[in-house]
Amino acid sequence: MKYVIIFLFASFITTAQINKEQLDVMPWPQNITVTEGSFALTKNFKVNITGAPNQRIFSGATRFLRRLDGRTGMFFYQGFVTGLNEVPDAELQINCVRSGKIELYEDESYLLDIAKNKITINATTDLGALHALETLVQLLQNNKDSFYFPISKISDFPRFTWRGLMIDGARHFMPVDVIKRNLDGMAAVKMNVFHWHLVDDQGWRIEMKKHPKLIQMASDGNYYTQEEIKNIVQYAADRGILVVPEIDMPGHGSAILTAYPEIGSKVVTLNVNSGEKEQKFTQIQSYSLERNSGIFSPTLDPSNPKTYQLISEFFDEVCPLFPGKFFHIGGDENEGKDWDANPKIQEFKKKHNLVNNHELQTYFTMQLIPMLKKHNKELMGWEEIMTKNMSQDAIIHSWKGTNEGVPAGKSLVDAVKGGYKTVLSNGYYIDLMFGVEDHYTVDPMPKNVVLTEVEKARILGGEATLWSELVTPSTIDSRIWPRTAAIAERLWSNENITDIVSLRKRLKTVSFRLEELGLTHLKSKEALLRNISNNQKNEALEDLSNICEPLKKYSRNAQGTEYQTYSPFTLFADACTPDAFDALGFNTAVDSYLNNKSIENQLLVTNYLNKWIKMNSDLIQLSLNAPLIQPLLPISKNLSSLSEQLLLKMDKKQNVDATVLNNLLEQCNSKEHADVELAVYNSLKKLVQA
Amino acid sequence: MKYVIIFLFASFITTAQINKEQLDVMPWPQNITVTEGSFALTKNFKVNITGAPNQRIFSGATRFLRRLDGRTGMFFYQGFVTGLNEVPDAELQINCVRSGKIELYEDESYLLDIAKNKITINATTDLGALHALETLVQLLQNNKDSFYFPISKISDFPRFTWRGLMIDGARHFMPVDVIKRNLDGMAAVKMNVFHWHLVDDQGWRIEMKKHPKLIQMASDGNYYTQEEIKNIVQYAADRGILVVPEIDMPGHGSAILTAYPEIGSKVVTLNVNSGEKEQKFTQIQSYSLERNSGIFSPTLDPSNPKTYQLISEFFDEVCPLFPGKFFHIGGDENEGKDWDANPKIQEFKKKHNLVNNHELQTYFTMQLIPMLKKHNKELMGWEEIMTKNMSQDAIIHSWKGTNEGVPAGKSLVDAVKGGYKTVLSNGYYIDLMFGVEDHYTVDPMPKNVVLTEVEKARILGGEATLWSELVTPSTIDSRIWPRTAAIAERLWSNENITDIVSLRKRLKTVSFRLEELGLTHLKSKEALLRNISNNQKNEALEDLSNICEPLKKYSRNAQGTEYQTYSPFTLFADACTPDAFDALGFNTAVDSYLNNKSIENQLLVTNYLNKWIKMNSDLIQLSLNAPLIQPLLPISKNLSSLSEQLLLKMDKKQNVDATVLNNLLEQCNSKEHADVELAVYNSLKKLVQA
Repeated sequence: MKYVIIFLFASFITTAQINKEQLDVMPWPQNITVTEGSFALTKNFKVNITGAPNQRIFSGATRFLRRLDGRTGMFFYQGFVTGLNEVPDAELQINCVRSGKIELYEDESYLLDIAKNKITINATTDLGALHALETLVQLLQNNKDSFYFPISKISDFPRFTWRGLMIDGARHFMPVDVIKRNLDGMAAVKMNVFHWHLVDDQGWRIEMKKHPKLIQMASDGNYYTQEEIKNIVQYAADRGILVVPEIDMPGHGSAILTAYPEIGSKVVTLNVNSGEKEQKFTQIQSYSLERNSGIFSPTLDPSNPKTYQLISEFFDEVCPLFPGKFFHIGGDENEGKDWDANPKIQEFKKKHNLVNNHELQTYFTMQLIPMLKKHNKELMGWEEIMTKNMSQDAIIHSWKGTNEGVPAGKSLVDAVKGGYKTVLSNGYYIDLMFGVEDHYTVDPMPKNVVLTEVEKARILGGEATLWSELVTPSTIDSRIWPRTAAIAERLWSNENITDIVSLRKRLKTVSFRLEELGLTHLKSKEALLRNISNNQKNEALEDLSNICEPLKKYSRNAQGTEYQTYSPFTLFADACTPDAFDALGFNTAVDSYLNNKSIENQLLVTNYLNKWIKMNSDLIQLSLNAPLIQPLLPISKNLSSLSEQLLLKMDKKQNVDATVLNNLLEQCNSKEHADVELAVYNSLKKLVQA
Repeated sequence: MKYVIIFLFASFITTAQINKEQLDVMPWPQNITVTEGSFALTKNFKVNITGAPNQRIFSGATRFLRRLDGRTGMFFYQGFVTGLNEVPDAELQINCVRSGKIELYEDESYLLDIAKNKITINATTDLGALHALETLVQLLQNNKDSFYFPISKISDFPRFTWRGLMIDGARHFMPVDVIKRNLDGMAAVKMNVFHWHLVDDQGWRIEMKKHPKLIQMASDGNYYTQEEIKNIVQYAADRGILVVPEIDMPGHGSAILTAYPEIGSKVVTLNVNSGEKEQKFTQIQSYSLERNSGIFSPTLDPSNPKTYQLISEFFDEVCPLFPGKFFHIGGDENEGKDWDANPKIQEFKKKHNLVNNHELQTYFTMQLIPMLKKHNKELMGWEEIMTKNMSQDAIIHSWKGTNEGVPAGKSLVDAVKGGYKTVLSNGYYIDLMFGVEDHYTVDPMPKNVVLTEVEKARILGGEATLWSELVTPSTIDSRIWPRTAAIAERLWSNENITDIVSLRKRLKTVSFRLEELGLTHLKSKEALLRNISNNQKNEALEDLSNICEPLKKYSRNAQGTEYQTYSPFTLFADACTPDAFDALGFNTAVDSYLNNKSIENQLLVTNYLNKWIKMNSDLIQLSLNAPLIQPLLPISKNLSSLSEQLLLKMDKKQNVDATVLNNLLEQCNSKEHADVELAVYNSLKKLVQA
């Protein structure tokens, strides 16, 4: 009988019509229609390519086949796609008019047509075709025992031309395989700019053959060889991604100055008492790699010709590694302390009629523009470079917001009104550990400002930024994914695609599917929890991790000195992520219950509360053989105590003292333990106050 | 009250004396004594290095600190160890007499002395000191809230000088990060030879600047650049590991001949009918990369001078990448079919008085010896190279056994009696999916043969071999680890260390700790099961994976054609591993029960049986939305049905038909489903027959 039921249920699934709302595609396409019926996937599925595409489509199509085969276990007959029109009768036909260029404003559009026995992709360029393949692999559906694509038509193109992800490989070095798997993740959600932050106070990460001191003295041995860089640039180009390198100057200069102290701004004055009279000498400051996080004073000397000579030589060696048109020179967070204290620099300012340090920095930045132009590159910098005399050729990277005491994205509007092209990162700082909704609701196109069409066109797009002060190769993926997929959707899809419920539903599938590309955001958590639990069965620990989130903004490392670059990032806060999974479920349950206190709705809430009471006692048990669990016990104990009281309150069999409840609630709001916060606090508060 | 109990229990742990049997050290040291008391680990723990070691000890000590810190979350003050005698009062003092050389017979011994406030490592070379650090990191203990080392003294040294792991990067390409994390795993269990199988029918994996055709035509774009090879050789040397490259010749030649068909042995005779008379022409055979597994006929032509010219040029380019003394030239599985069919080669044999193909192959191999000697390298080859005229300079790699129709390790004895040095791999073929016990009980020193001391000294050691026909970067770690740690122990520790119970206990911890090095043997399984279950909660699937093992020997891919190199290896068989975890537990439970049918012992067994009945119904439920689960249902259904009958039988409330039981049992012995076998079959059989 059991089998009969299953059979009926299965055949129900098989014939059920798919609605487009059921599809877990991200970014959501510009136009999609789904009609009845499906294309059945079999091992005979093959790909044929026609037209005049770039070679990258062949390896792209081969990777597509491998992913589809790995997911379905179909054992496709076709092993490789290596040339034009190899399989004229293939079920998947891809036609590209011409080879795509890895640059802004390139045509990335595609048409995808899934019919009963045939799938057709038409695109101007192979870049569009690669996007179509990513959409197709997301469209795969299954029933009980087979896989299929829903019959549908999609026409799609990006809203913004700059859909970026920045990875900071300077604070914590990120090896080649980390970069590559994240490029795969980017391609999967149709992002097209990889901004590679390669130099900061904590290290210089580019092999320099003519200036080997930079890696010998300022990298701790952790750098990318020039061959690796070229290889990554090619890997990115094969996925339609432009690489924009960054060397952060003139501030954030500890690494450069560790190798070349002679171009630093700091002067040390020595009082030497030689016999009778005291003499003053100045000598070059020595610098060292920074191990903490924050804003530091080491700054290049803009008055020293040697500074420009060296930078020009750096560019001569680095620029040829990056065929793309843009070079990011940083330019942020220069506080000018060492400039103010250096008499020579003050004199230089006067001589050049530079009234403040901003103008001095503009002077500095302006010297770099022709150096880059020589290599056919445009200069890009963080918003601090935008001062009154800055060339309009520079691209302004807008990053400051309320956290820095200015209105969110103010510099973006200033930039476009001032005639600059600009990219938005304020609101896309994924290292701050905010939930996905915070990022998803940020749009590069400002809402309450009237802009002309010309000004609007200067908004190139946006870029998620992953600063790596508290991030290692083991945790980076969980800091980027899946949230960045939501930012990718904001930058690709129609501005009206804003439904957070749909986003969350699709993101769950996207997150799971990103693992197929080798991303470790799910796996690494399990490994971290195994270590924390000392290899004990750790369901309780997992439960706790599903309601805790790492402290947000920079509060985990407030003074920048609690964690050094070499500190352990194997802690509970490293295993936890934003958008704590059970917190979402609990919030929904509480809202339903407060809306309608039915027995069913009450049960939804009390199930959680009872689970957390048991979790606490299980954690105490686990902690007997796991020192790393000790710091978590106050959190679970507070939650367990409050849960007990809330159960009593909801039961209404016993009066619960409001003061007791409120005290327990506030303990659950503590951020004092293990660098995490309870993500269920707000819903607990609703229950307490209900 | 709960807390009081916990406190008492915790303080019991704190003061408990550690016995050496409790320590999870592997390989087990030659001498170890443990006495009462402990060295408490604090964040002030620092390392100081004295003597005249190689630089590698500094990075090694730094890595040691990072691992210990990651495991304990201690936040050590010391970030880097960069020079001699930096911290004279450090708690850990390492002294090395001299720099270690990466070669056989080097002194790898060490003394490790853990006292209450001080730890001392003394070693002749830094290689011994690195081994000591691996032992120390394994000795770390914890109680409820702190970490410590037990007071102890260890003096240790290896039994064999060749403790190798071979990785086949030819059948499936294994990227740099895969190789590196496995080198870390090797170092953790004190292995010192990485044998890198770089060329086979399925690909040539070495960048060749002077012979680019090899990578252009015979690598599918998957190869190691020369820079990457040098980088890996250095990475290995930093961990005390010698790299031995292999280019397999003259058989297994498809890749070489794809690029250079002119040195192949196969002749094609064409009959061309030109008008009246028919003429015969011979032309060069074209070759292509092999996509299947097995033994194939493409073989280099030993009669062609061009063959030797090319090989010599290959060596000229490849040898300088590998500073070590050994070069493996393969030499296995040449069946000589194409030689027999080639009249020119037959003529060559006659002319040189070579009576059979073995002698012809010896002729071939002998030509390579001076080519390698020119680069200061000794030739090593699989046992087939050992024929009567083979130079005694060659090292014989013994691999055949009962599977190949010869007594296990016969060639090893033949080799040492014939004056050859030799390395044993028969019994260490970890790709065959045997359990750890099978490998652990194999000793390179033959038991039932009398050897002289000189002959014994020719046995250099052993080597685990991981052939990659059915292995990908995602699954390789679970095919190597943790079983290879047991082989490492066989090769390092005293021959009397053979207790399988102790091995299994320690291996469980070793497996967990290997994850600390980035090995993915645990994490990858979770990712594979997520894919198979289509991202559903999959406890039942995990339960099934814990009693199933991949088919053993070559039966998973019997004809070598079911799987191609591009087939999906994301299946249930890929998630399963030898030494299925629950099978061990069930076997123990059944043995206890059959020995004493107490209620407690019966419960141990029936818990499993009931679990599997529930597992089956859960899997049926999961399968409704997961096509990849369908092929597993027959296995779980058979097991569930038998479990139901066995419960009835054990209950004795109902007579169970023996025929029914036996039929169900035999269904559980099926190897027809999903390329796995039920690892609980033997214990089920005992229950049926009891």
